[in-house]
Amino acid sequence: MLEQPYLLFLGDAPDQLAAKVAQGIRDWRPESVVGQLRMPGCQADLGLPDMTIEQAAAAGARTLVVGVANRGGMISPAWIKVLREALEAGMDVASGLHNLLRDEPLLVEAARHAGRKLHDVRVPTVKYPIANGKKRSGKRCLAVGTDCSVGKMYTALAMEKAMRARGMKADFRATGQTGILITGEGVPLDAVVADFMAGAIEWLTPDAEPDHWDLIEGQGSLFHPSYSGVTLALIHGGQPDALVLCHEPTRGHMRGLPEYALPSLEDLRDVALRMARIVNPACEVVGVSINTAAMDEEEALDYLAAVERQMGLPTVDPFRQGADRLAEALE
Amino acid sequence: MLEQPYLLFLGDAPDQLAAKVAQGIRDWRPESVVGQLRMPGCQADLGLPDMTIEQAAAAGARTLVVGVANRGGMISPAWIKVLREALEAGMDVASGLHNLLRDEPLLVEAARHAGRKLHDVRVPTVKYPIANGKKRSGKRCLAVGTDCSVGKMYTALAMEKAMRARGMKADFRATGQTGILITGEGVPLDAVVADFMAGAIEWLTPDAEPDHWDLIEGQGSLFHPSYSGVTLALIHGGQPDALVLCHEPTRGHMRGLPEYALPSLEDLRDVALRMARIVNPACEVVGVSINTAAMDEEEALDYLAAVERQMGLPTVDPFRQGADRLAEALE
Repeated sequence: MLEQPYLLFLGDAPDQLAAKVAQGIRDWRPESVVGQLRMPGCQADLGLPDMTIEQAAAAGARTLVVGVANRGGMISPAWIKVLREALEAGMDVASGLHNLLRDEPLLVEAARHAGRKLHDVRVPTVKYPIANGKKRSGKRCLAVGTDCSVGKMYTALAMEKAMRARGMKADFRATGQTGILITGEGVPLDAVVADFMAGAIEWLTPDAEPDHWDLIEGQGSLFHPSYSGVTLALIHGGQPDALVLCHEPTRGHMRGLPEYALPSLEDLRDVALRMARIVNPACEVVGVSINTAAMDEEEALDYLAAVERQMGLPTVDPFRQGADRLAEALE
Repeated sequence: MLEQPYLLFLGDAPDQLAAKVAQGIRDWRPESVVGQLRMPGCQADLGLPDMTIEQAAAAGARTLVVGVANRGGMISPAWIKVLREALEAGMDVASGLHNLLRDEPLLVEAARHAGRKLHDVRVPTVKYPIANGKKRSGKRCLAVGTDCSVGKMYTALAMEKAMRARGMKADFRATGQTGILITGEGVPLDAVVADFMAGAIEWLTPDAEPDHWDLIEGQGSLFHPSYSGVTLALIHGGQPDALVLCHEPTRGHMRGLPEYALPSLEDLRDVALRMARIVNPACEVVGVSINTAAMDEEEALDYLAAVERQMGLPTVDPFRQGADRLAEALE
């Protein structure tokens, strides 16, 4: 679990997109952030107070979060210098980069000396159990997709926000590195050893109050050959009561696989429900979430209305419209 | 890849069952074995020549295989002594035990000194790729089960034997530690990191001659919540052309999960075929393999005939009858 509040490190981000992890934290957990740190040449800006390490420490920052993608797959000497200062000022440092903080001797030494922690959130640190399949109290909702990267994390976070606004008990449960940095905890599922995947999700979504909802971050797709096993472990470990179908309508083929067409929403509904009902016979599909970023407003609204008729389910783009209708469907 | 031939180490096995890994090697790869080594008190016997380390080395043994389960989860000092002698005599040592050879300092030191290898086959040693889903040449058959431990490995090995006897090109592809020790190579799938599971199976079953069959060892079950993700990765990485349904008819519930009933063979057929056709639309179910060990001969034959009528597929117990009819179905 990461200590909060955060200082968001944007480094020398070449553009706004490179800082999308920081943007996600700022959008979904603004109360967890004291400010941003930008190095010379940084082209991203989250509209937060710019702070030095010293100012952030004085403002109470407990963890510097690397909220930017690194170029060329290495952590540059200029970054190392700033991260060391953060450790020396009493902060932990957290990162979801492929290159691990723990592989940088200067950071390891600085953390040891300052008595602070380096958090590489891509790497599991918990010894997860084997799943036992037992029914747990409380409710769970899982977003499943026709493909990878169609908006499953965004959908779950938007639902959490809408549900909390309605006074419902709801917690987003992170299963990937960006989600873990946003909430400060979770399971890096794609890095868990095969035998423990479903058990890790049971661990992540334990017994809860009867009217409490876990909104589990989806991963991969049952129809994506590279990652489908991860998705099924998520369904069988999560024992969802509700599924939300996620789709990006302009994609020509499965992500990274030119030979594979996307399934229809009906196919996704039928296959995901069949698999979910093995562990929870009461599971239902409650809504559809469409990522219409590639459409203009009129085209998007027409498309959403058409899917709603076709599927007979509440259908929204949570980015354009919020997730209130999905929250209502769970209520 | 393990060097052959093997010396099979039975240690101080308290009964024949404790030596079932060695029994599997002897049954399926007798040509890979020079003899057995039994310590004082050993209650197992494979009917092979008893040999000392010295005799086995003289007979050409390249690897001592630990073919016995250890009691109390530790590798005893008495075992260590024999394994060290094997290393000193120029053999590698291989094991599928949970306790790793590499965690025993005396073995590590002896292996280093002798220039020999310790093989812990439960631990992946290859950096597997992410699956790319591309079609490969050659044919693949996968055994899928209504549950774990219903005879999937036995079925694939029996099919390999029957196919080779008919002059067909067939190779068993191991995905678990016993299978790996039997064939000397394979993927310890349950220990692979989630993101690389399907890619590991693509790596295991590469392009081959058009009339060559890989017989892929199954793992888990799509209906077993603890391991279903592993099974789906096996289906999507393996891209099977043919599925064989495996079942144990006297089991009251899913292995280790008293709350879960076994699915019907029809359910297994429909769900496994639906998932397999995502990666191979031409996939077919070609037969049924039933483990009738808990039935007497008459009861077993009646049951097999009933399933054959019910499913409309060749149905055998490969232990009682061999797998010739399944081989024929692939031909």
